[in-house]
Amino acid sequence: MTRTALASLDAVLRAGGPHLPGLMGRVEERLRELAVGHGPLLAEHAEMTVAAGGKRLRPLLVFLGAGEPSGDGLSVGAVRAAVAVELIHSATLVHDDVLDDAELRRGRPSVVATAGRGIATATGDLLFSRAFAELTRNGRAEEVRVLSAASSALAEGELLQRADAWSADVDPDRYLQRCELKTAALFAAACELGALEGAPDRVSAAGELALFGRRVGLAFQLLDDVLDVSGSPEHTGKRRGADLLDGTVTLPLILARQKDSALAQLDLRTIRSEQAAAELCDRIEATGAVAQARERALGIVSAAKAELPDLEPEQRSALELVADAVVERYA
Amino acid sequence: MTRTALASLDAVLRAGGPHLPGLMGRVEERLRELAVGHGPLLAEHAEMTVAAGGKRLRPLLVFLGAGEPSGDGLSVGAVRAAVAVELIHSATLVHDDVLDDAELRRGRPSVVATAGRGIATATGDLLFSRAFAELTRNGRAEEVRVLSAASSALAEGELLQRADAWSADVDPDRYLQRCELKTAALFAAACELGALEGAPDRVSAAGELALFGRRVGLAFQLLDDVLDVSGSPEHTGKRRGADLLDGTVTLPLILARQKDSALAQLDLRTIRSEQAAAELCDRIEATGAVAQARERALGIVSAAKAELPDLEPEQRSALELVADAVVERYA
Repeated sequence: MTRTALASLDAVLRAGGPHLPGLMGRVEERLRELAVGHGPLLAEHAEMTVAAGGKRLRPLLVFLGAGEPSGDGLSVGAVRAAVAVELIHSATLVHDDVLDDAELRRGRPSVVATAGRGIATATGDLLFSRAFAELTRNGRAEEVRVLSAASSALAEGELLQRADAWSADVDPDRYLQRCELKTAALFAAACELGALEGAPDRVSAAGELALFGRRVGLAFQLLDDVLDVSGSPEHTGKRRGADLLDGTVTLPLILARQKDSALAQLDLRTIRSEQAAAELCDRIEATGAVAQARERALGIVSAAKAELPDLEPEQRSALELVADAVVERYA
Repeated sequence: MTRTALASLDAVLRAGGPHLPGLMGRVEERLRELAVGHGPLLAEHAEMTVAAGGKRLRPLLVFLGAGEPSGDGLSVGAVRAAVAVELIHSATLVHDDVLDDAELRRGRPSVVATAGRGIATATGDLLFSRAFAELTRNGRAEEVRVLSAASSALAEGELLQRADAWSADVDPDRYLQRCELKTAALFAAACELGALEGAPDRVSAAGELALFGRRVGLAFQLLDDVLDVSGSPEHTGKRRGADLLDGTVTLPLILARQKDSALAQLDLRTIRSEQAAAELCDRIEATGAVAQARERALGIVSAAKAELPDLEPEQRSALELVADAVVERYA
């Protein structure tokens, strides 16, 4: 995932209602409390990842799913759900860095680079466990069910990605299934948890809000994969074709292979230099596959917006702005 | 942990009541279902660990904590709790193997040896997530709280162990704290979850049963660490001093350092061969520290048995037999 800031998320915060900045602030506070409040071991390693920032897109989706709190609502439950979702996300980042031997995370040294594989793996496990501990405080088994399904999906997506690495046989459906699992499921869970913590009359919209989140997450991952092929390093903070060098087969390559028979024959393992990766990106772009993948993502975002359920105007426009923000990362 | 079979667990199964073998069989069935029923990705890697056997000591503790089911009770909830606890245990085994680059687990090739670090880490994450998914089906937030606290403790224990590796400053209290976190907490959770799924009039004993589980788990870990120093490889399936070679500072070494000033000065990093590790084990034994550590474990087991709450005679004697079985591993 690129580190491109979602500057337009500020617009979401403004549109979503005056309560949002306060709630997002409470998420930061609680993440910091959890990082420093459980002894020096967690603090030392987890603080780097958890409290070091990030876009907090998933917590934002929780609050947008919940809508504006009613008069007496302190949104304690929604804050817990937002914290839990971000903890799951942070746990997967820590584990991803272990697997990729990544040096940096959110612009700082990664846990694995600082403390080694053992501590990084245990730190990720701890963040996972804390996520469930935090959400459980809401006392609602249904919410835990939603979170555990999403965190299962994340792990399955990771397994699928590794099973399909370097493969020439990944078709668009299999690719989309992987994106559903590794990205869209947690976006969906964020929206659904928000709805479950929202006003009682909005709980009925939980399924539709989950679908919105799923679609936005799917588009987010598609556009991320498009950026890997076509984005400038200045924009994405990553070298072009980093996924290809990792053996990760994404939609632009899959579509390009359908159009360019030489690409269809290419063994991804032969791409071993940044130069070769950049040239492969150029060839993929030349087939029109990048534009096609991007169109597909935009279509998914349109559907997400078009099929939003009946909501308060503020909630609706904030959700639409989030969907737009995902697209604007690409521009 | 050694692979020494707890043959005396058969006696527990006989003593605990005619319902126990059936319940343990359902745990096996469900673990197998979960391993093969979620697509080929999980099946391929998780089946090896989850369904490949093991002593199933933690599921047994769940059922012993619950006591004999009442007439209409199908123990569905207790089976789920037992499965969840075993899944958490399996997840930590898979991750531990990643960290240790272990070749074998339960006599079979480990996931990391077969499929690599990436897939093994994701498989562990998936088993974690499935544990919570399984337990959540009971619909009781309190149970999820118990499990998430225990799985947090496991990860914290792992962090503590790594933080203290090779250290000459680990005192007995710090060592015991680590054992509480990495082993005793899940034993305690197993007993407590069982009590929460037991007959309503036994739920009040949940705290006392948790304390029993904590003590048995603590003794289990202590004796495991004693075996590392004094056990014969034929008995333990491991070479003597494997912990010492890993830099893991355990109670026999800590106590021996208090008695032998040359040992107190020893830098564990200088122990690099099996021969050197075996010689160090001999020196530790010569101080009487092994016997002392063993006495401490036996004292903990005695306290566990002595302070069992008021229970049905069958439940009580089965719990006592489990405590004895933990000691008999040593004999």
